[in-house]
Amino acid sequence: MILNGGYVHGGDIYKHRVTLDFSANVNPLGTPEAVKAAIKASADAVAVYPDPYCTTLREKLAAKHAVSASDIVCGNGAAELIYQFAAAIRVRTALLPVPSFADYETALFAAGTQPVFWTLNRENGFALTEDVLDAITEDAGVLMLANPNNPTGKSVPKDLLRRILDRCRKTGTWLFLDECFTDLTDEEKAVSLCGALEENDRVFLLHAFTKTYGMAGVRLGYAITKHAALKRALEACSQPWNVSTVAQAAGLAALDCPDWAQKTRALIRTEKAYLMSELTALGVPVLYGDANFLLLSGVPTLYEKLLERGILVRDCRNYRGLGQGDCRIAVRTHEENRTLIEAIREVLHASDRH
Amino acid sequence: MILNGGYVHGGDIYKHRVTLDFSANVNPLGTPEAVKAAIKASADAVAVYPDPYCTTLREKLAAKHAVSASDIVCGNGAAELIYQFAAAIRVRTALLPVPSFADYETALFAAGTQPVFWTLNRENGFALTEDVLDAITEDAGVLMLANPNNPTGKSVPKDLLRRILDRCRKTGTWLFLDECFTDLTDEEKAVSLCGALEENDRVFLLHAFTKTYGMAGVRLGYAITKHAALKRALEACSQPWNVSTVAQAAGLAALDCPDWAQKTRALIRTEKAYLMSELTALGVPVLYGDANFLLLSGVPTLYEKLLERGILVRDCRNYRGLGQGDCRIAVRTHEENRTLIEAIREVLHASDRH
Repeated sequence: MILNGGYVHGGDIYKHRVTLDFSANVNPLGTPEAVKAAIKASADAVAVYPDPYCTTLREKLAAKHAVSASDIVCGNGAAELIYQFAAAIRVRTALLPVPSFADYETALFAAGTQPVFWTLNRENGFALTEDVLDAITEDAGVLMLANPNNPTGKSVPKDLLRRILDRCRKTGTWLFLDECFTDLTDEEKAVSLCGALEENDRVFLLHAFTKTYGMAGVRLGYAITKHAALKRALEACSQPWNVSTVAQAAGLAALDCPDWAQKTRALIRTEKAYLMSELTALGVPVLYGDANFLLLSGVPTLYEKLLERGILVRDCRNYRGLGQGDCRIAVRTHEENRTLIEAIREVLHASDRH
Repeated sequence: MILNGGYVHGGDIYKHRVTLDFSANVNPLGTPEAVKAAIKASADAVAVYPDPYCTTLREKLAAKHAVSASDIVCGNGAAELIYQFAAAIRVRTALLPVPSFADYETALFAAGTQPVFWTLNRENGFALTEDVLDAITEDAGVLMLANPNNPTGKSVPKDLLRRILDRCRKTGTWLFLDECFTDLTDEEKAVSLCGALEENDRVFLLHAFTKTYGMAGVRLGYAITKHAALKRALEACSQPWNVSTVAQAAGLAALDCPDWAQKTRALIRTEKAYLMSELTALGVPVLYGDANFLLLSGVPTLYEKLLERGILVRDCRNYRGLGQGDCRIAVRTHEENRTLIEAIREVLHASDRH
């Protein structure tokens, strides 16, 4: 939790008066009714401790990903697993392409690991390119990647991903790959390395229920790994009951909503096209992202002006490699997106008048 | 979570076929209806991220304990805070009276801390005595105590506790004091060091909702500390959203049930007297505990024989300083306690016949 205000993420509707939140990248359709029903039903079962093995949930996830249940490690949200991973491998250095999710860096520092930042190029649309391969040396320790990346929305091309996997194997580098947004990514760009874990088991794939199933408030994430020593180390630095009874029940219900991701993807595709076209028409520079969010730039006080109108977007100033005017917006429902576009139009007109 | 079966706690109703669970020390009255209602209501709010500051919950807890909200650190169950504390102080050694809760040791090992075990004496009823003061030296690092202790149920006398606090201050030793069972402890023995934190701020007091409010499946615990550097270190090794929206809502509802602990205490006092008298009549050696559980000994296969009858008690063989035949039982409702006594009577008679 946060004690002294050092919060650097989206979704902070607690410090701001907000009527519309575009700052958190969660599913615009919200939580499936079946998940809500499962949470309600679990209320009668909370007097006893949760299943510390997450037995049923892991079996179901194993079936979904065609791996063994023993390859699944559940966490109190994907965020917890980032900290546990860093604590479990406890390497000297880490290779960290930036901008990326702030907690990779925080978790590395907490584990005493020194990140080496690999700055992604704005002129190149923040794409990860093959020159990163040369940076994966015997001293790299771990490469921490998100695919698609957050906040840029850029996917790693499948071919490059395979070469990274191979290079990590050859150099003994851990590969941490955050696939939390895969479910909400354009289908042709959504790839997972799950099928390639037999080739190189020094890999940790991160997944979440948060984004896909609107379960941010429940806390449920999981990792897939086949590395036996890593599993033991993860277990050693975790309490036995980190995944609540409520989260396990909600997760099981979510996995019974097979068309939820598909339905959301369709909405995101349409709405992303709408937002891209409106923003372009307004002259706001916007980076096309493969996931359910977009990175805007070029309007210096956009964050503050939208907040005055009760709309929270993700001010990206505190990301490494980003700055004033860089804002991330989630793709929401059409009505919400329209409201956002109107508000941006107002902000631009108001500043024209000054 | 547990991957490879290394589970060493009570409450494992998932691996065993159990009709009655005496192995987990939770409130025999279960979960207050108001808490269940709050969990159900929170189901509609889980699409957004939890409040990372736990604002309202911390304010309410601060009022309850007459401390500042900034002195409260919330966790995903008290268990998470044990690991965060060990990771945050990261000292070389720890002084650990045993037998005690297994996760103190696991958390210390995960943080690279070497525990020095201080064996409590069975002949003395596992009481902590003043000779522990001599072991609190400049090299001690941290003293980890539970009051009352688990699985013995023994409280630390108030006077000794104050001398420990003073000795820790003089030697620069951290004091970790687990007060999770205080609410369910005989009133005259229930003490908290909360009022003494101004004298020595190198103190971490652990509390939980789990036991008092039957919320083991929700995961909510908190710590009280006034040590600024410790707070910063705890924050640095935690994800921002470790306390779910569901847990925050449940905790707030629990704090609105002020007579719940009182009602439970009264039940436990009566039922503990009943269990003590019946076990003594049966000739089963039983250690009087100040909290909501009792430590039995002297019946070598009691655990297995009760399990055959669908009753799970806490086999204490894997506690340091305990062994074969040592079993912990929670104090439950009268009907459950009577069933347990009848089952123990049966076990004893059956072994007489052999």
